[in-house]
Amino acid sequence: MNYPSRLIEEAVSEISRLPGIGKKTALRLALHLLKREEEQTRSLSEALVNMRTKTTYCVKCHNIADDRHCNICTNPRRDQSIICVVVDTRDVLAIESTNQYKGLYHVLGGIISPLEGIGPADLNIDSLVARVEYKGEEDAVNEVILALSPTMEGDTTAFYLQKKLRTTGIKMSTIARGVPIGGDLEYADEITLGRSIVSRVAYD
Amino acid sequence: MNYPSRLIEEAVSEISRLPGIGKKTALRLALHLLKREEEQTRSLSEALVNMRTKTTYCVKCHNIADDRHCNICTNPRRDQSIICVVVDTRDVLAIESTNQYKGLYHVLGGIISPLEGIGPADLNIDSLVARVEYKGEEDAVNEVILALSPTMEGDTTAFYLQKKLRTTGIKMSTIARGVPIGGDLEYADEITLGRSIVSRVAYD
Repeated sequence: MNYPSRLIEEAVSEISRLPGIGKKTALRLALHLLKREEEQTRSLSEALVNMRTKTTYCVKCHNIADDRHCNICTNPRRDQSIICVVVDTRDVLAIESTNQYKGLYHVLGGIISPLEGIGPADLNIDSLVARVEYKGEEDAVNEVILALSPTMEGDTTAFYLQKKLRTTGIKMSTIARGVPIGGDLEYADEITLGRSIVSRVAYD
Repeated sequence: MNYPSRLIEEAVSEISRLPGIGKKTALRLALHLLKREEEQTRSLSEALVNMRTKTTYCVKCHNIADDRHCNICTNPRRDQSIICVVVDTRDVLAIESTNQYKGLYHVLGGIISPLEGIGPADLNIDSLVARVEYKGEEDAVNEVILALSPTMEGDTTAFYLQKKLRTTGIKMSTIARGVPIGGDLEYADEITLGRSIVSRVAYD
Protein backbone atom coordinates (compact mmCIF):
# COMPACT_ATOMS: atom_id res chain seq x y z
CA MET A 1 0.00 0.00 0.00
CA ASN A 2 1.13 3.54 -0.73
CA TYR A 3 1.14 5.25 2.66
CA PRO A 4 0.63 9.02 2.61
CA SER A 5 3.52 9.60 5.00
CA ARG A 6 6.76 7.91 5.96
CA LEU A 7 5.89 8.40 9.66
CA ILE A 8 2.61 6.55 9.23
CA GLU A 9 4.35 3.81 7.31
CA GLU A 10 6.90 3.33 10.09
CA ALA A 11 4.21 3.28 12.78
CA VAL A 12 2.12 0.78 10.78
CA SER A 13 5.13 -1.43 10.25
CA GLU A 14 5.96 -1.44 13.98
CA ILE A 15 2.37 -2.01 15.10
CA SER A 16 1.86 -4.85 12.64
CA ARG A 17 4.80 -6.76 14.18
CA LEU A 18 2.48 -7.49 17.12
CA PRO A 19 0.80 -10.92 16.97
CA GLY A 20 -2.63 -11.00 15.34
CA ILE A 21 -2.38 -7.45 14.00
CA GLY A 22 -2.12 -7.06 10.24
CA LYS A 23 -1.33 -3.98 8.15
CA LYS A 24 -4.98 -2.91 7.89
CA THR A 25 -5.64 -3.07 11.62
CA ALA A 26 -2.32 -1.35 12.28
CA LEU A 27 -3.31 1.50 9.98
CA ARG A 28 -6.68 1.79 11.70
CA LEU A 29 -4.95 2.01 15.10
CA ALA A 30 -2.40 4.55 13.82
CA LEU A 31 -5.10 6.80 12.35
CA HIS A 32 -7.08 6.46 15.57
CA LEU A 33 -4.12 7.70 17.60
CA LEU A 34 -3.63 10.58 15.15
CA LYS A 35 -7.18 11.74 15.84
CA ARG A 36 -6.81 11.62 19.60
CA GLU A 37 -4.92 13.87 22.01
CA GLU A 38 -1.14 13.67 21.78
CA GLU A 39 -1.20 12.78 25.49
CA GLN A 40 -2.83 9.39 24.78
CA THR A 41 -0.04 8.31 22.43
CA ARG A 42 2.59 9.51 24.88
CA SER A 43 1.12 7.62 27.82
CA LEU A 44 0.71 4.48 25.70
CA SER A 45 4.37 4.62 24.66
CA GLU A 46 5.57 5.30 28.17
CA ALA A 47 3.50 2.48 29.63
CA LEU A 48 4.95 0.06 27.05
CA VAL A 49 8.58 1.08 27.59
CA ASN A 50 8.16 1.14 31.37
CA MET A 51 6.61 -2.31 31.32
CA ARG A 52 9.32 -3.71 29.08
CA THR A 53 12.29 -2.18 30.89
CA LYS A 54 11.16 -2.30 34.52
CA THR A 55 9.20 -5.54 34.82
CA THR A 56 11.10 -8.12 36.83
CA TYR A 57 10.50 -11.78 37.51
CA CYS A 58 9.97 -13.37 40.91
CA VAL A 59 13.23 -15.09 41.91
CA LYS A 60 11.23 -17.93 43.44
CA CYS A 61 8.47 -18.81 40.97
CA HIS A 62 9.55 -16.78 37.87
CA ASN A 63 6.15 -15.14 37.61
CA ILE A 64 6.08 -11.48 36.59
CA ALA A 65 6.63 -9.26 39.62
CA ASP A 66 7.12 -5.63 40.56
CA ASP A 67 9.77 -6.64 43.08
CA ARG A 68 12.18 -9.48 43.84
CA HIS A 69 9.25 -11.67 44.87
CA CYS A 70 5.79 -11.74 43.30
CA ASN A 71 2.71 -10.99 45.36
CA ILE A 72 1.64 -14.64 45.36
CA CYS A 73 4.91 -15.97 46.83
CA THR A 74 4.91 -13.26 49.51
CA ASN A 75 1.27 -13.73 50.46
CA PRO A 76 1.26 -15.43 53.93
CA ARG A 77 -2.26 -16.77 53.34
CA ARG A 78 -1.15 -18.96 50.42
CA ASP A 79 -0.36 -22.62 51.05
CA GLN A 80 3.44 -22.82 50.73
CA SER A 81 3.46 -26.62 50.57
CA ILE A 82 1.92 -26.98 47.12
CA ILE A 83 3.29 -25.83 43.76
CA CYS A 84 1.32 -25.59 40.53
CA VAL A 85 3.60 -25.77 37.48
CA VAL A 86 2.44 -23.66 34.51
CA VAL A 87 3.88 -22.48 31.21
CA ASP A 88 3.49 -18.72 31.53
CA THR A 89 1.91 -15.81 33.38
CA ARG A 90 -1.32 -16.10 31.41
CA ASP A 91 -1.87 -19.55 32.92
CA VAL A 92 -1.31 -18.13 36.40
CA LEU A 93 -3.94 -15.47 35.71
CA ALA A 94 -6.35 -18.08 34.33
CA ILE A 95 -6.01 -20.32 37.39
CA GLU A 96 -6.15 -17.35 39.78
CA SER A 97 -9.42 -16.22 38.24
CA THR A 98 -11.03 -19.57 39.20
CA ASN A 99 -10.49 -18.81 42.92
CA GLN A 100 -10.01 -22.56 43.45
CA TYR A 101 -6.28 -22.68 44.12
CA LYS A 102 -4.51 -21.26 47.15
CA GLY A 103 -0.99 -22.67 46.72
CA LEU A 104 2.06 -21.27 44.94
CA TYR A 105 3.08 -21.41 41.29
CA HIS A 106 6.14 -22.19 39.25
CA VAL A 107 6.32 -20.59 35.80
CA LEU A 108 8.36 -22.67 33.34
CA GLY A 109 8.61 -19.83 30.84
CA GLY A 110 7.89 -22.13 27.90
CA ILE A 111 7.27 -25.70 26.93
CA ILE A 112 9.54 -28.43 25.57
CA SER A 113 9.24 -28.26 21.80
CA PRO A 114 11.94 -29.92 19.69
CA LEU A 115 10.40 -28.37 16.54
CA GLU A 116 10.96 -24.84 17.87
CA GLY A 117 14.32 -25.81 19.37
CA ILE A 118 13.16 -25.38 22.98
CA GLY A 119 14.70 -27.99 25.27
CA PRO A 120 14.53 -28.56 29.04
CA ALA A 121 17.60 -26.35 29.55
CA ASP A 122 15.68 -23.32 28.22
CA LEU A 123 12.98 -23.64 30.90
CA ASN A 124 12.96 -22.88 34.64
CA ILE A 125 13.24 -26.56 35.58
CA ASP A 126 16.38 -26.59 37.74
CA SER A 127 14.88 -24.00 40.07
CA LEU A 128 11.70 -26.11 40.32
CA VAL A 129 13.78 -29.14 41.34
CA ALA A 130 15.61 -26.97 43.89
CA ARG A 131 12.30 -25.75 45.36
CA VAL A 132 11.00 -29.32 45.64
CA GLU A 133 14.22 -30.62 47.18
CA TYR A 134 14.47 -27.79 49.71
CA LYS A 135 13.55 -29.12 53.14
CA GLY A 136 13.14 -25.95 55.20
CA GLU A 137 11.16 -25.80 58.41
CA GLU A 138 8.23 -23.81 57.12
CA ASP A 139 7.93 -23.94 53.40
CA ALA A 140 8.73 -27.53 52.49
CA VAL A 141 6.81 -28.58 49.40
CA ASN A 142 4.75 -31.76 49.52
CA GLU A 143 2.78 -31.68 46.28
CA VAL A 144 3.43 -30.59 42.70
CA ILE A 145 0.48 -30.13 40.31
CA LEU A 146 1.30 -30.06 36.61
CA ALA A 147 -1.12 -27.70 34.85
CA LEU A 148 0.09 -28.04 31.25
CA SER A 149 -1.99 -27.99 28.08
CA PRO A 150 -3.07 -31.44 26.81
CA THR A 151 -0.97 -31.11 23.66
CA MET A 152 2.01 -33.04 22.37
CA GLU A 153 4.40 -30.44 23.83
CA GLY A 154 2.51 -30.28 27.14
CA ASP A 155 2.57 -34.06 27.51
CA THR A 156 6.28 -34.20 26.64
CA THR A 157 7.06 -31.54 29.23
CA ALA A 158 4.90 -33.29 31.84
CA PHE A 159 6.65 -36.59 31.14
CA TYR A 160 10.07 -34.96 31.48
CA LEU A 161 9.12 -33.29 34.77
CA GLN A 162 7.74 -36.55 36.18
CA LYS A 163 11.00 -38.31 35.40
CA LYS A 164 13.06 -35.44 36.79
CA LEU A 165 11.11 -35.14 40.05
CA ARG A 166 10.51 -38.86 40.67
CA THR A 167 13.77 -39.21 42.63
CA THR A 168 12.60 -36.56 45.12
CA GLY A 169 9.64 -38.75 46.08
CA ILE A 170 7.28 -35.76 45.87
CA LYS A 171 3.55 -36.34 45.39
CA MET A 172 2.67 -35.33 41.83
CA SER A 173 -0.62 -34.79 40.04
CA THR A 174 -2.00 -33.29 36.87
CA ILE A 175 -5.15 -31.25 36.31
CA ALA A 176 -8.16 -33.35 35.28
CA ARG A 177 -8.94 -33.85 31.59
CA GLY A 178 -12.58 -34.39 30.74
CA VAL A 179 -15.74 -33.03 29.18
CA PRO A 180 -15.93 -29.26 29.78
CA ILE A 181 -18.78 -28.02 31.97
CA GLY A 182 -21.64 -26.98 29.69
CA GLY A 183 -20.13 -29.13 26.93
CA ASP A 184 -22.33 -31.62 25.16
CA LEU A 185 -21.17 -35.28 25.29
CA GLU A 186 -22.18 -35.68 21.67
CA TYR A 187 -19.64 -33.10 20.56
CA ALA A 188 -16.74 -34.13 22.82
CA ASP A 189 -13.89 -35.78 20.90
CA GLU A 190 -13.20 -39.46 21.54
CA ILE A 191 -9.91 -38.96 23.37
CA THR A 192 -11.38 -36.44 25.82
CA LEU A 193 -14.47 -38.57 26.39
CA GLY A 194 -12.34 -41.71 26.82
CA ARG A 195 -10.12 -39.91 29.32
CA SER A 196 -13.17 -38.65 31.23
CA ILE A 197 -14.34 -42.27 31.67
CA VAL A 198 -10.94 -43.55 32.76
CA SER A 199 -10.58 -40.67 35.24
CA ARG A 200 -14.17 -40.91 36.50
CA VAL A 201 -14.83 -39.36 39.91
CA ALA A 202 -16.71 -41.34 42.57
CA TYR A 203 -19.68 -39.62 44.25
CA ASP A 204 -18.96 -38.85 47.88
CA MET B 1 -8.47 -9.41 36.79
CA ASN B 2 -5.62 -9.51 39.28
CA TYR B 3 -2.55 -8.49 37.30
CA PRO B 4 0.77 -9.78 38.60
CA SER B 5 2.40 -6.38 38.29
CA ARG B 6 1.37 -2.74 38.33
CA LEU B 7 3.48 -2.09 35.21
CA ILE B 8 1.58 -4.77 33.28
CA GLU B 9 -1.70 -3.40 34.52
CA GLU B 10 -0.83 0.09 33.30
CA ALA B 11 0.33 -1.18 29.92
CA VAL B 12 -2.83 -3.30 29.51
CA SER B 13 -5.01 -0.36 30.44
CA GLU B 14 -3.30 1.89 27.87
CA ILE B 15 -3.33 -0.72 25.09
CA SER B 16 -6.99 -1.54 25.66
CA ARG B 17 -7.94 2.10 25.01
CA LEU B 18 -7.26 1.40 21.33
CA PRO B 19 -10.38 0.60 19.29
CA GLY B 20 -11.25 -3.08 18.99
CA ILE B 21 -8.71 -4.19 21.58
CA GLY B 22 -10.08 -5.56 24.84
CA LYS B 23 -8.30 -6.40 28.08
CA LYS B 24 -7.51 -9.98 27.06
CA THR B 25 -5.94 -9.02 23.73
CA ALA B 26 -4.08 -6.17 25.43
CA LEU B 27 -2.61 -8.61 27.95
CA ARG B 28 -1.59 -10.96 25.16
CA LEU B 29 0.17 -8.10 23.35
CA ALA B 30 1.87 -6.91 26.55
CA LEU B 31 3.16 -10.41 27.38
CA HIS B 32 4.32 -10.77 23.77
CA LEU B 33 6.40 -7.59 24.04
CA LEU B 34 7.83 -8.78 27.36
CA LYS B 35 9.13 -11.91 25.66
CA ARG B 36 10.77 -10.01 22.79
CA GLU B 37 13.88 -7.84 22.67
CA GLU B 38 13.63 -4.55 24.52
CA GLU B 39 14.53 -2.91 21.20
CA GLN B 40 11.19 -3.90 19.67
CA THR B 41 9.18 -2.12 22.36
CA ARG B 42 11.39 0.94 22.11
CA SER B 43 11.06 1.24 18.35
CA LEU B 44 7.29 0.70 18.57
CA SER B 45 6.97 3.51 21.14
CA GLU B 46 9.19 5.83 19.19
CA ALA B 47 7.34 5.20 15.95
CA LEU B 48 4.03 5.97 17.66
CA VAL B 49 5.22 9.18 19.31
CA ASN B 50 7.01 10.33 16.15
CA MET B 51 3.92 9.69 14.08
CA ARG B 52 1.66 11.51 16.54
CA THR B 53 3.88 14.53 17.08
CA LYS B 54 5.45 15.02 13.64
CA THR B 55 2.71 14.09 11.18
CA THR B 56 1.42 17.15 9.36
CA TYR B 57 -1.51 17.67 7.04
CA CYS B 58 -1.33 18.86 3.45
CA VAL B 59 -2.33 22.55 3.39
CA LYS B 60 -4.17 21.98 0.12
CA CYS B 61 -6.12 18.72 0.50
CA HIS B 62 -5.76 18.04 4.27
CA ASN B 63 -4.47 14.54 3.64
CA ILE B 64 -1.72 13.28 5.92
CA ALA B 65 1.67 14.48 4.68
CA ASP B 66 5.32 14.50 5.64
CA ASP B 67 5.63 18.06 4.41
CA ARG B 68 3.51 21.15 3.70
CA HIS B 69 2.02 19.40 0.68
CA CYS B 70 1.18 15.72 0.35
CA ASN B 71 2.77 13.59 -2.35
CA ILE B 72 -0.48 13.42 -4.33
CA CYS B 73 -0.92 17.21 -4.59
CA THR B 74 2.73 17.67 -5.60
CA ASN B 75 2.70 14.88 -8.18
CA PRO B 76 2.82 16.58 -11.64
CA ARG B 77 1.31 13.48 -13.28
CA ARG B 78 -1.97 13.83 -11.38
CA ASP B 79 -4.92 15.58 -13.04
CA GLN B 80 -5.19 18.88 -11.16
CA SER B 81 -8.63 19.66 -12.59
CA ILE B 82 -10.58 17.03 -10.68
CA ILE B 83 -11.10 16.70 -6.93
CA CYS B 84 -12.41 13.62 -5.14
CA VAL B 85 -13.96 14.52 -1.76
CA VAL B 86 -13.51 11.87 0.94
CA VAL B 87 -13.97 11.60 4.70
CA ASP B 88 -10.50 10.55 5.82
CA THR B 89 -7.09 9.24 4.81
CA ARG B 90 -8.29 5.64 4.82
CA ASP B 91 -10.66 6.49 1.97
CA VAL B 92 -7.76 8.05 0.02
CA LEU B 93 -5.76 4.84 0.49
CA ALA B 94 -8.75 2.71 -0.55
CA ILE B 95 -9.30 4.70 -3.76
CA GLU B 96 -5.56 4.86 -4.49
CA SER B 97 -5.32 1.10 -4.26
CA THR B 98 -7.86 0.76 -7.10
CA ASN B 99 -5.46 2.52 -9.53
CA GLN B 100 -8.52 3.98 -11.27
CA TYR B 101 -8.25 7.59 -10.19
CA LYS B 102 -5.57 10.05 -11.22
CA GLY B 103 -6.98 13.33 -9.90
CA LEU B 104 -6.55 15.07 -6.53
CA TYR B 105 -8.35 14.59 -3.23
CA HIS B 106 -9.94 16.71 -0.57
CA VAL B 107 -10.13 15.17 2.91
CA LEU B 108 -13.09 16.48 4.91
CA GLY B 109 -11.74 15.14 8.21
CA GLY B 110 -15.13 13.81 9.27
CA ILE B 111 -18.75 13.66 8.29
CA ILE B 112 -21.78 15.76 9.26
CA SER B 113 -23.38 13.97 12.20
CA PRO B 114 -25.80 15.92 14.40
CA LEU B 115 -25.90 12.99 16.85
CA GLU B 116 -22.17 13.26 17.49
CA GLY B 117 -22.27 17.05 17.39
CA ILE B 118 -20.24 17.33 14.19
CA GLY B 119 -21.46 20.17 11.98
CA PRO B 120 -20.20 21.61 8.67
CA ALA B 121 -17.98 24.08 10.54
CA ASP B 122 -15.94 21.18 12.00
CA LEU B 123 -15.04 19.89 8.53
CA ASN B 124 -12.61 21.16 5.86
CA ILE B 125 -15.43 22.56 3.72
CA ASP B 126 -14.42 26.22 3.39
CA SER B 127 -11.06 25.23 1.92
CA LEU B 128 -12.84 22.96 -0.57
CA VAL B 129 -15.04 25.86 -1.71
CA ALA B 130 -11.93 28.03 -2.02
CA ARG B 131 -10.20 25.37 -4.15
CA VAL B 132 -13.24 25.09 -6.42
CA GLU B 133 -13.62 28.86 -6.74
CA TYR B 134 -9.93 29.46 -7.50
CA LYS B 135 -9.53 30.25 -11.17
CA GLY B 136 -5.79 29.98 -11.72
CA GLU B 137 -4.21 29.43 -15.12
CA GLU B 138 -3.05 25.88 -14.57
CA ASP B 139 -4.88 24.19 -11.76
CA ALA B 140 -8.48 25.34 -12.17
CA VAL B 141 -10.88 22.64 -10.99
CA ASN B 142 -13.67 21.53 -13.30
CA GLU B 143 -15.13 18.49 -11.57
CA VAL B 144 -15.82 17.44 -7.98
CA ILE B 145 -16.55 13.79 -7.21
CA LEU B 146 -18.20 13.06 -3.87
CA ALA B 147 -16.95 9.68 -2.58
CA LEU B 148 -18.90 9.42 0.68
CA SER B 149 -20.36 6.33 2.28
CA PRO B 150 -24.02 5.63 1.39
CA THR B 151 -25.18 6.19 4.98
CA MET B 152 -27.44 8.78 6.54
CA GLU B 153 -24.43 10.92 7.51
CA GLY B 154 -22.78 10.47 4.12
CA ASP B 155 -25.94 11.50 2.28
CA THR B 156 -26.44 14.51 4.57
CA THR B 157 -22.87 15.64 3.95
CA ALA B 158 -23.22 15.10 0.19
CA PHE B 159 -26.45 17.12 0.17
CA TYR B 160 -24.81 19.95 2.11
CA LEU B 161 -21.81 20.02 -0.25
CA GLN B 162 -24.04 20.05 -3.33
CA LYS B 163 -25.94 23.04 -1.96
CA LYS B 164 -22.73 24.81 -0.98
CA LEU B 165 -20.97 24.25 -4.32
CA ARG B 166 -23.98 24.77 -6.61
CA THR B 167 -23.33 28.53 -6.87
CA THR B 168 -19.86 27.89 -8.28
CA GLY B 169 -21.41 26.10 -11.27
CA ILE B 170 -18.88 23.26 -10.92
CA LYS B 171 -19.66 19.86 -12.46
CA MET B 172 -20.41 17.45 -9.58
CA SER B 173 -20.82 13.68 -9.42
CA THR B 174 -20.97 10.89 -6.88
CA ILE B 175 -19.46 7.43 -7.01
CA ALA B 176 -21.84 4.78 -8.39
CA ARG B 177 -24.01 2.76 -6.02
CA GLY B 178 -24.91 -0.72 -7.17
CA VAL B 179 -24.47 -4.42 -6.74
CA PRO B 180 -20.84 -5.18 -5.76
CA ILE B 181 -18.79 -7.17 -8.26
CA GLY B 182 -18.95 -10.83 -7.27
CA GLY B 183 -22.12 -10.08 -5.27
CA ASP B 184 -25.19 -12.19 -5.83
CA LEU B 185 -28.34 -10.31 -6.94
CA GLU B 186 -30.40 -12.52 -4.65
CA TYR B 187 -28.61 -11.19 -1.59
CA ALA B 188 -28.43 -7.51 -2.55
CA ASP B 189 -30.76 -5.33 -0.47
CA GLU B 190 -33.73 -3.68 -2.23
CA ILE B 191 -32.37 -0.13 -2.04
CA THR B 192 -29.01 -1.05 -3.58
CA LEU B 193 -30.66 -3.18 -6.27
CA GLY B 194 -33.20 -0.43 -6.98
CA ARG B 195 -30.42 2.14 -7.27
CA SER B 196 -28.46 -0.13 -9.60
CA ILE B 197 -31.44 -0.26 -11.97
CA VAL B 198 -32.04 3.50 -11.90
CA SER B 199 -28.32 4.16 -12.54
CA ARG B 200 -28.00 1.46 -15.19
CA VAL B 201 -25.06 1.83 -17.56
CA ALA B 202 -25.59 1.58 -21.34
CA TYR B 203 -23.33 -0.81 -23.25
CA ASP B 204 -20.91 1.02 -25.51
